[in-house]
Order: sequence, then C-alpha cells, then structure tokens
Amino acid sequence: MVLDAWNQKVSHLNKLFDELTDEQLEKQIARGKNTGVYILGHLAAISNRMIPLLGLGSEVNPELYDPFVEKAEKEVTERPPVKDLRKAWRDINAKLSQLFAGMQPDEWFKRHNSISDADFLKEPHRNKLNVIINRTNHLDYHAGQVVLLKP
Amino acid sequence: MVLDAWNQKVSHLNKLFDELTDEQLEKQIARGKNTGVYILGHLAAISNRMIPLLGLGSEVNPELYDPFVEKAEKEVTERPPVKDLRKAWRDINAKLSQLFAGMQPDEWFKRHNSISDADFLKEPHRNKLNVIINRTNHLDYHAGQVVLLKP
Repeated sequence: MVLDAWNQKVSHLNKLFDELTDEQLEKQIARGKNTGVYILGHLAAISNRMIPLLGLGSEVNPELYDPFVEKAEKEVTERPPVKDLRKAWRDINAKLSQLFAGMQPDEWFKRHNSISDADFLKEPHRNKLNVIINRTNHLDYHAGQVVLLKP
Repeated sequence: MVLDAWNQKVSHLNKLFDELTDEQLEKQIARGKNTGVYILGHLAAISNRMIPLLGLGSEVNPELYDPFVEKAEKEVTERPPVKDLRKAWRDINAKLSQLFAGMQPDEWFKRHNSISDADFLKEPHRNKLNVIINRTNHLDYHAGQVVLLKP
C-alpha cells in the first residue's frame, strides 16, 4: 500500500512535469516563491538522498543536494539546465523502482541509516517503510505547488 | 506509522492556519487559484467524509461537502464565515482522533465503505489504513499550497 502510494505520486508528478513547458516551469508558483524548476531539482535531490538513507548504495546525482536542498533558490546563482533536471528526475525514479523491487518485505521494517541501533530499539517505527511514507507526503506537498503552474 | 504521519500533517496544518489571519486566508494561494479559506473548508469536508467511509458513523459537518468538494470555488456564491470553518476543522480533527483511538489494530485491514465485499477479496489493499495513507497525502498536497499565503 505504501509503495503503491509512492508510485502513484511519482506518476502524478511525471504527468505534471510533462504537461508543463520549460518556460512554464521557470515561473514562480506564487509571487516571490520558488519556481517549478527549483521544485523539480529539489524533488530529484531528496529522492537521490533516499538511496543512502535506505542503505541501498550511492546517490545517482549527489551534486543536486547542495543547490536544491541545502540552499534556498535565491542563494543559488547557477543551476543545471531544465533539460538536465528533467533527466535527473527520470533517472532517480527509474533507479528507485529497480532498488525497491529488489527489497524483501522484512527489509522495510529494519532501521534506516539516520538512526542508531540504540535509538531504533526505542523507536522501531523509524524504519525504511516510514521513510517512504514521509517522502510520499513530501512529493504530494510539492505536487500541490507545481499544479499551480498549469495555465 | 501511518497514524503518526496523519497526526503530524494535521498538526502542521493547524500551525499554518493559526499563523494566518482571516484576511491572509481569504487571499488566493496564487493568481486565479483557490483561496486559503476554500482549502480550509475543503480539508474539513474531506475529513468529515472519512467518518462514513471508515464505517465510524456520520459526518460532523455534512453541509461542507457540496460547496467545498462538489463545487469549485468560483461556483459558490455564499460560504460560511472563516471563524465557522476554523471551528469545523478543529471539530472534525477532535472527532477523528477520538474515533481512531477507539479502533482495534485489525480493524484497519478491513474494507472501507466505498468497496464491495467481492472487490475487496480481489483487492485487499483497499482497506481502512489505505484511506489514511491517501488522505494524509491529500493533507500535505494542500499544506504545500496554504504555506504560500505566509508573507
């Protein structure tokens, strides 16, 4: 159920990003707020970071984290072209699909890599499945913003 | 984990709504889009509808469904005062907390009321817990919009 919800939200965002031209994505979602391009890079960066968090390897595009998560949009002077960010978003989703498909059910109930063994004993809900629940919500949070760019 | 995520998102929205004045809530989240007030009514209406969907009784404020879900904002000529919608949102969340606390764990894996027994046999993931997963995402989708009203 949790993975179904994740996949649905990724599909919804794919559809939104596909419907929007590069020019539309470059607009602010509301006056003075982030652009669609920043959100695209932000989502790709957060999804990349899930790979090490879930103990599944290294990020595909680690260079996205600093400009799209650590920094606010107005602090960033240069960013990759929209085309490259669209590709990074497709690539990370393909990679995550492949990695999730290879996971055994019990693996989802093990600790993720931001929590120590000791803390996990006390808080067993801080497992890998919970990462997906939270990241799915995060996708939808930003989907509600990207949709505003549709004319 | 699923209920924790739900509670976190309700708290986040409470905080957002509390931070915004009635005047700020009456603004559009982006030019030509829904106002914060409409989203407040919409979320209260959708949460109300969860009560019958989960087989837990009747809605607290059934009159919200038509103007805030069936109809788009521009089709609605009269709406309750913001004060009443804030109260409806608080009331439905208090009611849901109480109802969820009274549910046994196995109850969450039973069918919800929008699916027949026959279909549920084929699609057992369409259970009550899945309603919470989807509605939590829905809360976050609109939280990403309400946050835009912060100056």
